[in-house]
Amino acid sequence: MIKKIHHLPKVITKPFRKSYYHQPGTLPGTIIINENAEPPNIILIDYNQTTLIREQITNPEDCANYLDTESVSWVDVQGLGNQDILERLGKVFDLHPLVLEDVVNMVERPKIEDYEDQLVIIARMVIPKEQGYGFYSEQVSLVLGQYYLLTVQEEPKYDCFEGVRTRITKGKGIIRKQGSDYLAYCLLDAIIDGFFPILELYGEHIEELEEEVIVKPTPQTLQKIYQIRRELLQLRRAIWPQRDTINFLIRDSSELISDEVRIYLRDCYDHTVQVMDMVETYRELASGLMDVYLSAVSNKMNEIMKFLTVVSSIFIPLTFVAGIYGMNFNTEKSPYNMPELNWYWGYPLCLGLMAIIACGLIFFFWQRGWLSNSVRMKRNSK
Amino acid sequence: MIKKIHHLPKVITKPFRKSYYHQPGTLPGTIIINENAEPPNIILIDYNQTTLIREQITNPEDCANYLDTESVSWVDVQGLGNQDILERLGKVFDLHPLVLEDVVNMVERPKIEDYEDQLVIIARMVIPKEQGYGFYSEQVSLVLGQYYLLTVQEEPKYDCFEGVRTRITKGKGIIRKQGSDYLAYCLLDAIIDGFFPILELYGEHIEELEEEVIVKPTPQTLQKIYQIRRELLQLRRAIWPQRDTINFLIRDSSELISDEVRIYLRDCYDHTVQVMDMVETYRELASGLMDVYLSAVSNKMNEIMKFLTVVSSIFIPLTFVAGIYGMNFNTEKSPYNMPELNWYWGYPLCLGLMAIIACGLIFFFWQRGWLSNSVRMKRNSK
Amino acid sequence: MIKKIHHLPKVITKPFRKSYYHQPGTLPGTIIINENAEPPNIILIDYNQTTLIREQITNPEDCANYLDTESVSWVDVQGLGNQDILERLGKVFDLHPLVLEDVVNMVERPKIEDYEDQLVIIARMVIPKEQGYGFYSEQVSLVLGQYYLLTVQEEPKYDCFEGVRTRITKGKGIIRKQGSDYLAYCLLDAIIDGFFPILELYGEHIEELEEEVIVKPTPQTLQKIYQIRRELLQLRRAIWPQRDTINFLIRDSSELISDEVRIYLRDCYDHTVQVMDMVETYRELASGLMDVYLSAVSNKMNEIMKFLTVVSSIFIPLTFVAGIYGMNFNTEKSPYNMPELNWYWGYPLCLGLMAIIACGLIFFFWQRGWLSNSVRMKRNSK
Amino acid sequence: MIKKIHHLPKVITKPFRKSYYHQPGTLPGTIIINENAEPPNIILIDYNQTTLIREQITNPEDCANYLDTESVSWVDVQGLGNQDILERLGKVFDLHPLVLEDVVNMVERPKIEDYEDQLVIIARMVIPKEQGYGFYSEQVSLVLGQYYLLTVQEEPKYDCFEGVRTRITKGKGIIRKQGSDYLAYCLLDAIIDGFFPILELYGEHIEELEEEVIVKPTPQTLQKIYQIRRELLQLRRAIWPQRDTINFLIRDSSELISDEVRIYLRDCYDHTVQVMDMVETYRELASGLMDVYLSAVSNKMNEIMKFLTVVSSIFIPLTFVAGIYGMNFNTEKSPYNMPELNWYWGYPLCLGLMAIIACGLIFFFWQRGWLSNSVRMKRNSK
Amino acid sequence: MIKKIHHLPKVITKPFRKSYYHQPGTLPGTIIINENAEPPNIILIDYNQTTLIREQITNPEDCANYLDTESVSWVDVQGLGNQDILERLGKVFDLHPLVLEDVVNMVERPKIEDYEDQLVIIARMVIPKEQGYGFYSEQVSLVLGQYYLLTVQEEPKYDCFEGVRTRITKGKGIIRKQGSDYLAYCLLDAIIDGFFPILELYGEHIEELEEEVIVKPTPQTLQKIYQIRRELLQLRRAIWPQRDTINFLIRDSSELISDEVRIYLRDCYDHTVQVMDMVETYRELASGLMDVYLSAVSNKMNEIMKFLTVVSSIFIPLTFVAGIYGMNFNTEKSPYNMPELNWYWGYPLCLGLMAIIACGLIFFFWQRGWLSNSVRMKRNSK
Repeated sequence: MIKKIHHLPKVITKPFRKSYYHQPGTLPGTIIINENAEPPNIILIDYNQTTLIREQITNPEDCANYLDTESVSWVDVQGLGNQDILERLGKVFDLHPLVLEDVVNMVERPKIEDYEDQLVIIARMVIPKEQGYGFYSEQVSLVLGQYYLLTVQEEPKYDCFEGVRTRITKGKGIIRKQGSDYLAYCLLDAIIDGFFPILELYGEHIEELEEEVIVKPTPQTLQKIYQIRRELLQLRRAIWPQRDTINFLIRDSSELISDEVRIYLRDCYDHTVQVMDMVETYRELASGLMDVYLSAVSNKMNEIMKFLTVVSSIFIPLTFVAGIYGMNFNTEKSPYNMPELNWYWGYPLCLGLMAIIACGLIFFFWQRGWLSNSVRMKRNSK
Repeated sequence: MIKKIHHLPKVITKPFRKSYYHQPGTLPGTIIINENAEPPNIILIDYNQTTLIREQITNPEDCANYLDTESVSWVDVQGLGNQDILERLGKVFDLHPLVLEDVVNMVERPKIEDYEDQLVIIARMVIPKEQGYGFYSEQVSLVLGQYYLLTVQEEPKYDCFEGVRTRITKGKGIIRKQGSDYLAYCLLDAIIDGFFPILELYGEHIEELEEEVIVKPTPQTLQKIYQIRRELLQLRRAIWPQRDTINFLIRDSSELISDEVRIYLRDCYDHTVQVMDMVETYRELASGLMDVYLSAVSNKMNEIMKFLTVVSSIFIPLTFVAGIYGMNFNTEKSPYNMPELNWYWGYPLCLGLMAIIACGLIFFFWQRGWLSNSVRMKRNSK
Repeated sequence: MIKKIHHLPKVITKPFRKSYYHQPGTLPGTIIINENAEPPNIILIDYNQTTLIREQITNPEDCANYLDTESVSWVDVQGLGNQDILERLGKVFDLHPLVLEDVVNMVERPKIEDYEDQLVIIARMVIPKEQGYGFYSEQVSLVLGQYYLLTVQEEPKYDCFEGVRTRITKGKGIIRKQGSDYLAYCLLDAIIDGFFPILELYGEHIEELEEEVIVKPTPQTLQKIYQIRRELLQLRRAIWPQRDTINFLIRDSSELISDEVRIYLRDCYDHTVQVMDMVETYRELASGLMDVYLSAVSNKMNEIMKFLTVVSSIFIPLTFVAGIYGMNFNTEKSPYNMPELNWYWGYPLCLGLMAIIACGLIFFFWQRGWLSNSVRMKRNSK
Repeated sequence: MIKKIHHLPKVITKPFRKSYYHQPGTLPGTIIINENAEPPNIILIDYNQTTLIREQITNPEDCANYLDTESVSWVDVQGLGNQDILERLGKVFDLHPLVLEDVVNMVERPKIEDYEDQLVIIARMVIPKEQGYGFYSEQVSLVLGQYYLLTVQEEPKYDCFEGVRTRITKGKGIIRKQGSDYLAYCLLDAIIDGFFPILELYGEHIEELEEEVIVKPTPQTLQKIYQIRRELLQLRRAIWPQRDTINFLIRDSSELISDEVRIYLRDCYDHTVQVMDMVETYRELASGLMDVYLSAVSNKMNEIMKFLTVVSSIFIPLTFVAGIYGMNFNTEKSPYNMPELNWYWGYPLCLGLMAIIACGLIFFFWQRGWLSNSVRMKRNSK
Repeated sequence: MIKKIHHLPKVITKPFRKSYYHQPGTLPGTIIINENAEPPNIILIDYNQTTLIREQITNPEDCANYLDTESVSWVDVQGLGNQDILERLGKVFDLHPLVLEDVVNMVERPKIEDYEDQLVIIARMVIPKEQGYGFYSEQVSLVLGQYYLLTVQEEPKYDCFEGVRTRITKGKGIIRKQGSDYLAYCLLDAIIDGFFPILELYGEHIEELEEEVIVKPTPQTLQKIYQIRRELLQLRRAIWPQRDTINFLIRDSSELISDEVRIYLRDCYDHTVQVMDMVETYRELASGLMDVYLSAVSNKMNEIMKFLTVVSSIFIPLTFVAGIYGMNFNTEKSPYNMPELNWYWGYPLCLGLMAIIACGLIFFFWQRGWLSNSVRMKRNSK
């Protein structure tokens, strides 16, 4: 039994929680480096309408020169595996200790903090898995200053900013003419847009399950539905607070965001609402699927039970009749002892009696409609 | 078995989702033309109290002359299959790139944007299917300027604006005396009113299902209930944001909407609330139907099981008695070996014993009320 | 089978929806006369502290003289079957076309509109059925002017204003000393109070069902619960918007409502909240009843299945033993072929074995507690 | 069967609703005297820091002298059985007709009304039953004036004000130094505190049910859970509006409540929130219990069915084998007719075959884990 | 049976409620000492940037000297077992009688009260159990004055403030440079951070249950799920009001909290929201697990029933056939009496007939898909 289980496809494998907390009572602002974290890879892109610098940074202090120039400086840190470099970065960008803590530790919940000359945005990015539906989830922190944008990503392996990088390097669109706030918008937009392909996959998967649930429900179907509900719950936790974040950017009077960018952010806000809307819709569908699954399983069961009932109810009385005439009462001792056995037409009469009982029961079942489902289905299967 | 399934009426065939997103990281304002989209068909209706022009436009630039005259110009674009024409339209009407993107790409969620000299309303229109219940859903974008109204429809085949066109051409009501804001109201009103016939059909369908669920629940009933819940979910997604849209038009201080039209919009708002109310009511009914269905199926099952129990419980002991006297113990070896077989009244006594057992069990079942349901139902069926 | 169904008491007969919509795209303000509507019956009651006129009106224009005098004029229109008269009424009272549309067409959702010199209140009145629980529902529109009140009722047959008419004609209470706003309050109060007797009946009915669900649940019980939930849903739709209506009257600064009447309206508001409270409570109870019903049915089923299990599990092994000794192996060919058949104590030993098996199984069932429920219940039934 | 039911403990006996409404259209302010109501018993307590008068009043007019003196006058009316006295009381205290109506008729829903020189508080008091859990519920109306407090109770038999009376007569705490607002606070506090012992009992009862549901679920358990949910619903209806009442007292700018008393009311508000919190928690627990009950019943059923399946599946094939060799084919007519019957080892071989079938099936069941539950449970029971 | 139950691991042992109320009508501000409470242990820590005093206090009056000096004085009272000391403490700190009541009696619901020169915070601390998941819960009251902080804990045995004490004594971080408001923040932060390890354990436990529910659901699984839901409900009750508390500290204009500390409190607020978020997520997961459990149990049951159906439906007809030829009709009396018994090929034909029936039924079951599940699972188990 136990062996068998391990052969089942393990659909629920992704741990839901991570160790995202430090010991209670710890000094606020403490940075904890995850041992498995990869060393940070720092890329600086500094651009304005005419110039473009793109280089790999090793010493965080090298950034300092770019930050106060009017050209937009995008410092992208990928990976969190080196405490020293992170603390030096914190000094270069003049980050509050609590900000550094939030950026480095995985706080799981998107939020925004306004420190007058800096806006700190904690966002959550989702990247579809290479195969199957499902997604990786990664925290991205954005620190927006007047002429710079610092982004810190958990994982160097993948992100969804490639399109933005291309637009900067190739000078597509208006990005080169705009400030760091427009850059922040572009990244947020890319993060939100990243939810759509994943939801698309969930939509397809739910449709497949709708088919599966009705046509061929198995215990695996149930696992799949539970798994979808679980992952939609995660998506929901990722997207809900981001709406508040973007709403804050639109409504807030921070001077770091220009009115023109606010129009773009409104568009981004609409997309966020749309993602939330889809997540909620899929959750409702998945929850409805659960009902249909339970009902489909129970319908199938009922069909089987009905068959058993019909077969048993017909043959049990017949077997009883056969049992009667299998008794060994001594017919010679008395004319009352099973005289039927010696009748000329005894056996045919007995068979006839059985046939009558069987037909009566079948008629009774038919009249009750207990045969209808099976019969209709058989017709369909021709 | 597998073949059978495909013979079932495929009730759930309409894909729930569409590819309405562009690649994450794409330039904001990018227009994506769906390959299957039909080429745009542009119709201009320009009218005031005395004059009326109606013509088919091929070059978007031809509209430009009409836009700034005081007569109301309604430019109706049907179909989204030509990027060039759409971009030229965008220039003629001076649309913000994000607006053009929203208008052309299917964003799925009604909303309103206020660009001082333009109000952009994204609405969702529903059209009942030719047969059966169910509906097609189509996005309509309205761009309202001082003397013009641009509408963009996804599909040229059908819309629900015919009544408005007739009122303009025949000069019925006050439409010819009013401005473009009144025209926008008329179209929004037609869109909202278009939900009622569909809801009417769902109402009828739910009543049929109420009957079906109690009288003759089949697995197909379940599919139908799920299908209704699914489609009501879609209607709900379409109508909820439209309430906010219309509310915004009423409350907002935009100079494009006159006070007189606001009174009419209040009426339209009431209809929207009423649609929402009906959708929610039908959703509750459909959800209640699910409970009744599950219970009805289980009741039917119980009736069948009760019959099996009664039949089995009566005949199993009787068969055992018959089995006893079917044993071949040698009566000649000992007076204790089944002497009943040689009794004069053996067989009648045995039959009598069986009758007593059967009657006792039937009395027991009757006393427990396990026969009552069947008996009462049989009486009803006479 | 099909015939049987039609003999069941058809509990769900009242159509849930009505044709309350006009064709999408219709001219706003269009009046649609239902063909079955009865011709309007117009009654004018004009009173002040000293005088009282009560007459039947045939020409709407006859009302005009009364409207501007300081005495309160109550024009009560019962029945909506004549478009001409309704339109002339609209002119006499100077109604906005949209108001006339709302008053005449059945919009289903209570609301209030403030047209400076007129307050238009759409309310919903419920009247208990003559027998059984359940109710008729009817729209009542109130148009309140400074010195007049116009009420329009869907049905001339019944209303709940008789008490108010008596108070006016007999001069009971302060009604004759007050203005048209107090009259409007009295009618609204009568409408809200009309919900209580109906809820009272539902309360009684739910108590009966509580008894029925536990003592003797049948499939009809389920239908009744569903029916109650459905009708409470209708009541809810009728009462919720009326709360907003009355709240608007209390809070609004319209000069048509005096401060003194506002105190009375607060009382009326409390009653409305109380009705809502009761409706919600009954809905929760009905929903809890559904759970209890399902569980009671399943309990009953379990008891039956338990009995089957006990009977089958005891007799199946015994029948097997009897089957063994019913085999026809030739005892003469070998001493190993069923020598028991020829033993002196063969048959008694065989019966003893059966008794031991039966007792062992009964002890096993008893130890498991599978007999306890039946036994305890039997004791109760003595 | 029917007799049996009436022997069940009737747990649901308390009617949920009362006749708390008057005929629709009745004059507002009408007092209706319940025929069973007991005659009012009026007790006056007049006190200040130094003096204390406590007397039984027969004529309401006797109170008048005390009301305007600076000493606090608490007039406590117990019982509502005399219309004349109540109307005279109304005149003495100068009550608005609607207030008198609310005070005398049972309106069921706590609320507060501010009449400048009077605050009218309708509260609901709960008193635990003498035995078992459950409670009596009674309306208490408080009319707070500057120097007096009028309380009207439905029932003279019990209240929860004894502690307050003792504090006044014995001069404990600061009550004698404070005004009528502090007295009103003390009574409200006593009313709210009266919910705690009842909730305590429900807490205990829910814990007992948690044990019962898992150890020995019976149909009575279900009734008890339903009963608890029903009574918690009643408690909820009683406590929710009282929160608004007390909140109004804290926030409102009425001069009748001093700032010092507001601090005490904040404490009382906290208790109210705590009661609500507990009611909601118990409701959630009760609702969770329902799930566990259903599941426990179904688990028990499954165990029984499993046993039936195992016994039937083993013995049915064996009985078939025995049936085969019970057939009477004539072995002498042909060597193919059941030659086994004449084999030397026929019977032992046949028994061996049966043993192999039985062991095979038992192994199959064991491998499937269908025996595990029973086996493990048996081990536990040693 | 009864014995067996008591051998089950008693998972639900922690009483959900405590006697946290005093008699209704009691004097407000009454202190009730729990008899089992341990005597208070008072520890004073007085520090500023340069000095540090830490001493055990026996007379509350000894604290008085420290309170008004500019150094921060933290008076930590552990245990509530001595009324006299608590009342003297109340006098030293000049506490309002209601505050003392709240601090000493266990009010269960976190809250905050602002007494101009004092902020009183009632919080709830959770401490993980030594083994297993689960937690102890303890009330902590904080009274914040300008230069002092009084904390009162229910239990001297454990708290989560050790880290803060270390930071003070070792002078780590900025705590020695800050005032009493920063100290209060540190303690609140430690309290909130204390929820994370407990939630971590619940997360792990839910994952184990997800595995268990699918692989091997037993009745104990159900108990565990119920237990988790129950404990998460408790956590929720503890954390929700703390959010309001901390939010009040951030928004409130009290001069006792400096702007710098408000920034830290915002971080603490974010953690609180995160805890709430996790609690809600786990509650949803636990509730989804319940569905999966019910469904898994029912799937297992269905598999068993299917097996019974297949076995019964095959062997019952075969047994009937065997029964037929076991009848004792006298073949010599008539050629119609069971001539088959004397046929040459009678027995083989009979066996062949049985084989045909069995194969037909198996084919029928296979075609219906009733065998598929079992077969597939068997393949997996190889």
